[in-house]
Amino acid sequence: MKKYIIGVDIGGTHTKVALLDLSGHILHKTDFLTKNYKSERLIKAVFLAVESIIEKKNIRKRDILGLGIGLPGLVDFKKGLVFCLTNIPGWKNVALKRILENKIGLPVFVDNDVKIMAMGELRFGAGKGYKNIICMTLGTGVGGAVIIDGNLYRGSSLVAGEIGHIPINEAGPSCDCGSSGCLEAYVGREYFLNNARKRLRNAPSAAVMKMTKGDISLLTPEILREAAVKGDRFSKEMWREMGLHIGNALAGVVNLLNPQIIIIGGGMAGAGEVLFGSIRKAVAKKSMRLPGRAVKIVRARLGNDAGVIGAAEIVKDNIGVRP
Amino acid sequence: MKKYIIGVDIGGTHTKVALLDLSGHILHKTDFLTKNYKSERLIKAVFLAVESIIEKKNIRKRDILGLGIGLPGLVDFKKGLVFCLTNIPGWKNVALKRILENKIGLPVFVDNDVKIMAMGELRFGAGKGYKNIICMTLGTGVGGAVIIDGNLYRGSSLVAGEIGHIPINEAGPSCDCGSSGCLEAYVGREYFLNNARKRLRNAPSAAVMKMTKGDISLLTPEILREAAVKGDRFSKEMWREMGLHIGNALAGVVNLLNPQIIIIGGGMAGAGEVLFGSIRKAVAKKSMRLPGRAVKIVRARLGNDAGVIGAAEIVKDNIGVRP
Repeated sequence: MKKYIIGVDIGGTHTKVALLDLSGHILHKTDFLTKNYKSERLIKAVFLAVESIIEKKNIRKRDILGLGIGLPGLVDFKKGLVFCLTNIPGWKNVALKRILENKIGLPVFVDNDVKIMAMGELRFGAGKGYKNIICMTLGTGVGGAVIIDGNLYRGSSLVAGEIGHIPINEAGPSCDCGSSGCLEAYVGREYFLNNARKRLRNAPSAAVMKMTKGDISLLTPEILREAAVKGDRFSKEMWREMGLHIGNALAGVVNLLNPQIIIIGGGMAGAGEVLFGSIRKAVAKKSMRLPGRAVKIVRARLGNDAGVIGAAEIVKDNIGVRP
Repeated sequence: MKKYIIGVDIGGTHTKVALLDLSGHILHKTDFLTKNYKSERLIKAVFLAVESIIEKKNIRKRDILGLGIGLPGLVDFKKGLVFCLTNIPGWKNVALKRILENKIGLPVFVDNDVKIMAMGELRFGAGKGYKNIICMTLGTGVGGAVIIDGNLYRGSSLVAGEIGHIPINEAGPSCDCGSSGCLEAYVGREYFLNNARKRLRNAPSAAVMKMTKGDISLLTPEILREAAVKGDRFSKEMWREMGLHIGNALAGVVNLLNPQIIIIGGGMAGAGEVLFGSIRKAVAKKSMRLPGRAVKIVRARLGNDAGVIGAAEIVKDNIGVRP
């Protein structure tokens, strides 16, 4: 009898709900705007999306092994408790697992989105075949996950993986976390854009000014990416510098953990080769010979589907289905 | 029938050879100056020390489970091959395991001294009862070892743990490893002393000048420790600054790996509270709240015996005796 899993990816912008088979294939997918549903209503929206998929695909609930959910924030994955979410207001200590299990009558498992992305990449993406992996996401924040010996390493208080808060300078810009000099304070979305805006005020780039119609408050990473692709020197330099900061932080991670592969995803990883080339160059320059040569640095492969695919994997892990 | 293990600790200065029981107790110990024996002759000296212990304690060779050796350098612990040793000339690709096994007729296991110190501290020292541990040694170099889930984590090319080569600044002093800004380039023995000498030339400290008889080329960490204990402001500041650099590097490690405990040993850890207080303060300031509060930072407990105790542990691990 064919069995299924539901994967849910609650993002700052979109919430995706998918039906998958046990091999990580997406059989059906739907999504809606997260901001349209506040707090408890978002839970109901997920519930309705799941019920609608079950009906549409005409499958029996008892053939669904469970539902996995990834969220961008601090999550107690053991208790299925959401402490708070980044960029999604109205969530504070929500017992998501219990609430959804009562509604839906299926086992529910909850985890942080970067940990879930890492599980997806490990099993079906760029991490397939590797055992010691560093995952990193570049977006509003800089997220991370450490996979040791094929398992997600969670640390002693379940908060391991904060690559974004490795200090890259002893004296540096202050960071949202309360410290200073953190990688995120150089390359997090807003820090990166504010830095670009400051420079544009002093020396405007014609290409970027045209694309923002002269209003640099409208600047986005997508504009800087597009301008870089078109050869804009200023934009290319911005991405190169971002790569240098990331590479300097990763050199320390490479020397400490000697990973086989570093997988980088998230919206800002879309900048592509101008960014990745610079990251690789900095890691090669700053890390020790042996671990520096051993490590591959690649872009995440599952893209937008990483969230729902990874979410399905945590269901398998939790109910003991062999990967 | 009582069983034994031989632990050997080859250091830059002393080589220690000890007979231990399976509970990590040292039953007999002997040592000699490493520099008195060059390369292959050092192997013979170890062999003779072992034979002498066996005779002195009147035990049968077949009751000795094996011999473990720790060395300060790059070691292939699987093959028992020593690539090269720090501060001990004349060792290049020595098949130590094979040579000693042929001589001595016992199973021999070889590993890097910091990894071995970490195993000793994990089983019988400051790491007892913990599972996720960072070990660090402060000496000529800054060594490290990562213990994950109670096991030594070796990394994908067996070179994980290089805490000394985490960059703490993007632009910084050049390091012996070929990179720049590494922690070791701030706090390794010679870097630390040269820095102190430079400052003493500009502003001599009466206490230190007296202890070096006015010749600061004779400055040692021991002198700076002693002067700090006596209240010398300059020496205290040197140790505080060292602690700040170490703490800044460890803050990144704490955020990335969320360890339960960080154990710091090695000659320069002898500076004690002036150093450790400063390390703890910097980690508290620079790391995130949850992992920063979770981690303990303590001095290694086994001291001079860590090497032989840890060496005995790797024998137990390799021949499958339960720890």
